[in-house]
Amino acid sequence: MTQGAEIICVGTELLLGEILNSNAQFLAQELAKLGIPHFFQTVVGDNPVRIKQAIALACQRSSIIIFTGGLGPTPDDLTTEAIADFFETPLVEDAAIWAIIEQKFTVRGIVPSPSNRKQALRPEGAQPLPNPTGTAPGIVWQPRYGLTLLTFPGVPRELYPMWNQTAIPFLKSQGWGETQIFSRNLRFWGIPESTLAEKVAPFLEQKSPTVAPYAGRGEARLRLSVRSNSQLEANQALDSLQQKIQALCGQDYYGSDADTLAAVVGRLLVERSQTVAVAESCTGGGLGQKLTDSPGSSGYFWGGVIAYDNRVKLKLLDVDAVTLSTQGAVSAIVAEQMAVGVKNLLETDWGISITGIAGPGGGSEEKPVGLVYIGLAAPDGSVTHQEYCLGLGRGRDWIRDVSASHALDLLRRQLLDKN
Amino acid sequence: MTQGAEIICVGTELLLGEILNSNAQFLAQELAKLGIPHFFQTVVGDNPVRIKQAIALACQRSSIIIFTGGLGPTPDDLTTEAIADFFETPLVEDAAIWAIIEQKFTVRGIVPSPSNRKQALRPEGAQPLPNPTGTAPGIVWQPRYGLTLLTFPGVPRELYPMWNQTAIPFLKSQGWGETQIFSRNLRFWGIPESTLAEKVAPFLEQKSPTVAPYAGRGEARLRLSVRSNSQLEANQALDSLQQKIQALCGQDYYGSDADTLAAVVGRLLVERSQTVAVAESCTGGGLGQKLTDSPGSSGYFWGGVIAYDNRVKLKLLDVDAVTLSTQGAVSAIVAEQMAVGVKNLLETDWGISITGIAGPGGGSEEKPVGLVYIGLAAPDGSVTHQEYCLGLGRGRDWIRDVSASHALDLLRRQLLDKN
Repeated sequence: MTQGAEIICVGTELLLGEILNSNAQFLAQELAKLGIPHFFQTVVGDNPVRIKQAIALACQRSSIIIFTGGLGPTPDDLTTEAIADFFETPLVEDAAIWAIIEQKFTVRGIVPSPSNRKQALRPEGAQPLPNPTGTAPGIVWQPRYGLTLLTFPGVPRELYPMWNQTAIPFLKSQGWGETQIFSRNLRFWGIPESTLAEKVAPFLEQKSPTVAPYAGRGEARLRLSVRSNSQLEANQALDSLQQKIQALCGQDYYGSDADTLAAVVGRLLVERSQTVAVAESCTGGGLGQKLTDSPGSSGYFWGGVIAYDNRVKLKLLDVDAVTLSTQGAVSAIVAEQMAVGVKNLLETDWGISITGIAGPGGGSEEKPVGLVYIGLAAPDGSVTHQEYCLGLGRGRDWIRDVSASHALDLLRRQLLDKN
Repeated sequence: MTQGAEIICVGTELLLGEILNSNAQFLAQELAKLGIPHFFQTVVGDNPVRIKQAIALACQRSSIIIFTGGLGPTPDDLTTEAIADFFETPLVEDAAIWAIIEQKFTVRGIVPSPSNRKQALRPEGAQPLPNPTGTAPGIVWQPRYGLTLLTFPGVPRELYPMWNQTAIPFLKSQGWGETQIFSRNLRFWGIPESTLAEKVAPFLEQKSPTVAPYAGRGEARLRLSVRSNSQLEANQALDSLQQKIQALCGQDYYGSDADTLAAVVGRLLVERSQTVAVAESCTGGGLGQKLTDSPGSSGYFWGGVIAYDNRVKLKLLDVDAVTLSTQGAVSAIVAEQMAVGVKNLLETDWGISITGIAGPGGGSEEKPVGLVYIGLAAPDGSVTHQEYCLGLGRGRDWIRDVSASHALDLLRRQLLDKN
């Protein structure tokens, strides 16, 4: 048995996929914050035999078992009973718990039904774990030395306050939470996960802080984690490591944790007191939407033109009709004209455009689905473009979303270069 | 060992609570549809010893083990290796898989890195399970009689098509899925889940097909489910029930299953050979993005103006300067002027506008966060608006997203009315 926690989520609705197991994520985050190692999660249905199987296994490998679900008043709520049964301990009715349940019902003007009486049962020797919002408490119990069980209802609205108000103080009283895990996610754009992993290979081997690579939606990430009893010390270790990694990766690194490309671009624009407008074809507004995800974006984003139809490109963006008909709407030159056009129309510092083939139809051998051009008109009057071949394998949504991110990334790099 | 499936999700990011385990829900739903019993889910980190512990246990109690995660190219992607190791079977490089990986990279103009070579490994005797969207395939393997393993990447965008295109046919070939659960989701906009549930209360009691209410992102849904060994019979039962429910709910019903408000609006516009343009303030392009989610939207969506800054409203949408300064940008009259403005500018049949306070800042007592106006200019020259008080509780993203959906719904109802 290791010193660590295991989560057992009880509920047939989870096995039928009727609900998403957000409790497991919540508890996992909370355990990480408290520095409690957490190696397994199990989901099991409302079946007494299988719940007991899950308990038997968890007892062998974990020192803290956290249950969610199965505490309700109906016959298929079986968690407390299964726990008592597994440890061959009788269930007793707790008069104090029953008084609390009755009182909670009375406040709501309801008479508790006989089935609620079940919620006042606890294994002999277990303590109630108060539930500030719901009817019935959970339990906290040490059925034997070195093993602690905590039970919680499955309803997140009851679980969260119960965890914060009753479980955390208990776990801290047991000595947990002095050492916590502090993590930071570094975000990269324009470099595949595998290339990034090779670039930072020596760091992947080190013990503390640890470094782990991930792939996001078109982006690569590194998660740095360190165990510490001091936020300050943890931040120093993470800062120092981050500096080394950034030095290796240059502009491919764009931000950390909750940073988005759009938010980073926003900060760079604010620093420079500059503004931007967008001209969008295949993304249909998705770039503008990303730019306005951040509160305060009205400080640097003025708006743009969704030029889905070529008539709009001609009329509002001043795209040249001959160029459009000879080169096609999806071309480098049209992308550049769109960027210049929207910059002039809205009188902003920067103009950025996207034109491409999002598919699934509309591709040709010469211009396949996934071909995208980004145009960028800069404050100094220069105009550039980038061509991207995003392939058709990952579908229309992906092509549109990643195109908008590429546009933000191109603007980000030019903002950094023209600093 | 029971005849049934167990899901093993591999990934330290799950144990740290960094991501929500949506794969487990997806797979649970899919197993239910195929009628495959499913009694356990396990989550385990990127640790070879613990992955093998999870395999050892699953082998004892399940006949199908479905893995997600740990198939990537980096050193902490360990699933295939742990499986081979547990069954004491050598890993071999599959030349055909490697050729596919190389080709997928070539299409994107990238040279695969040496670490990608790892993704071409499979335990001797295992078959590749093709991955239509990602780089590397999974495996399907029967390491011994009565036990089948399937591996999938952890990225949902790769998992879903892979499941549909390669795993389902395989599982059906093994005799699963003869009696299936056929489900249909009916989608409603403009009616709260509780009101909908009361309206269809008698149907919620019936045994077959079953009817269950759900709440989505601003919408209400009813899931109709029937168990059958005939798609035809199932469809007849679902059709008949759907008719009765639609008769009760009128225009609040907007579509089924994969239908979106944008797709339904698109179909109605195509039927009428009409076109639409958008004028967006607080949504910043989100309405245009929704309208262009559907392939073929160029047939009815011409584009629009993102008028985030008031200067753009004045210059391009012909909003009256006096009205703007006396009534404010977030007002019924400005919404109407924006809708008319974009309809005239882009010469479309319909013009639709959104102006509102998405927050978290910018609200006042008179105009709180969540106040949104939608303007609609119709082909017959009439102009209307709707006011929505969306509240600030659910945040900026929610307000922006639901505003765009309200705009689509308003257009949908007018298209139906003016049929």
